Amino acid sequence: MATIEFWYEFASTYSFLAAEEVEAAAQQAGVGVLWRPFLLGPIFAGQGYATSPFNLFPLKGRNMWRDLARRAAQLGHPAIVRPDPFPANGLLAARVATALADADRPAFSRAVFRAEFVAGDDISDRAVIGRLAAGLGHDAEALLARAGADEVKAALRTATARAEQIGIYGAPSFVTADGELFWGSDRLADALAWAKGERWGLPA
Amino acid sequence: MATIEFWYEFASTYSFLAAEEVEAAAQQAGVGVLWRPFLLGPIFAGQGYATSPFNLFPLKGRNMWRDLARRAAQLGHPAIVRPDPFPANGLLAARVATALADADRPAFSRAVFRAEFVAGDDISDRAVIGRLAAGLGHDAEALLARAGADEVKAALRTATARAEQIGIYGAPSFVTADGELFWGSDRLADALAWAKGERWGLPA
Repeated sequence: MATIEFWYEFASTYSFLAAEEVEAAAQQAGVGVLWRPFLLGPIFAGQGYATSPFNLFPLKGRNMWRDLARRAAQLGHPAIVRPDPFPANGLLAARVATALADADRPAFSRAVFRAEFVAGDDISDRAVIGRLAAGLGHDAEALLARAGADEVKAALRTATARAEQIGIYGAPSFVTADGELFWGSDRLADALAWAKGERWGLPA
Repeated sequence: MATIEFWYEFASTYSFLAAEEVEAAAQQAGVGVLWRPFLLGPIFAGQGYATSPFNLFPLKGRNMWRDLARRAAQLGHPAIVRPDPFPANGLLAARVATALADADRPAFSRAVFRAEFVAGDDISDRAVIGRLAAGLGHDAEALLARAGADEVKAALRTATARAEQIGIYGAPSFVTADGELFWGSDRLADALAWAKGERWGLPA
């Protein structure tokens, strides 16, 4: 089965949209999805951004929130909450997502995104993350402890370094098995088509 | 008939894609299109960009060219030429597009974009623009003379000022009659739906 890697950052608004859409679209395409949480902060810092470009460029930010509201409404979430502060600190959530088994990562990640952008919860709060984990049947205490272990911290750092190495500069990104990079939730369909061998007549 | 404004800049890669797609999509939606050439340079300068963000951020630029190639291939252009220098100077083309009658603007604009990104022509060259105009049945000499008139220069400056005033910060952008702003060729379908009254359950 063809697969795509879905690289996402919990603070990222369009990662939220992608997390909502990716499984249904991939299933319809007959493509598997590998969920890859990473941290965008270190990559942004390397580009000279001290915070989200949506904060640095107010007009761009204003349109992003409006676009997010429209797009989320299309997906059934007519009221979007702006995290305060934005971007939220997604480190804890990313560590927990990293600590989880592959099969458990998608549901937890979707729950985090909805808590952040629909319920308006603070995803940097251990109590919030613990409650989400417990709601999915995990032992929250044990999971939070595991998420704080050195090997999980190292695994997340390694994932972030790998993201940077393969040219990722924003989230979400999709990467196919042959290394083709697609940036943005709007490129999900292209990434799925590519994974299945579509090349649109491009020179090899 | 509902309409959208299609704001485009001749140096902009995604404006090229939008110019290729907008008329067919709008016709299918039953929406009219008002072609609005403007200059992005002054708006970028106001954001602190001395050149295209695709030049300032190399990883982003690299992916943009690859994405453009994939997207253009989907539209039937499997080989894309990168203007050198990039971004091209689109001032002359924008003045000519401004000088043309509304009905003549789309075909001329598409011809400019194809010359630039498919044929690899220098669109800042009067001979190139004159040839494109002549190929569409215009009196090239007279048109180029009109494009240099003070009233056309002023009209383009006014259009650019209006773009900035309504919150445009990139190209292409689509704006509906009630002022809803959509940024990027990927939002054409949303803009057309909005123009026809779709609100996706958003609070009014």
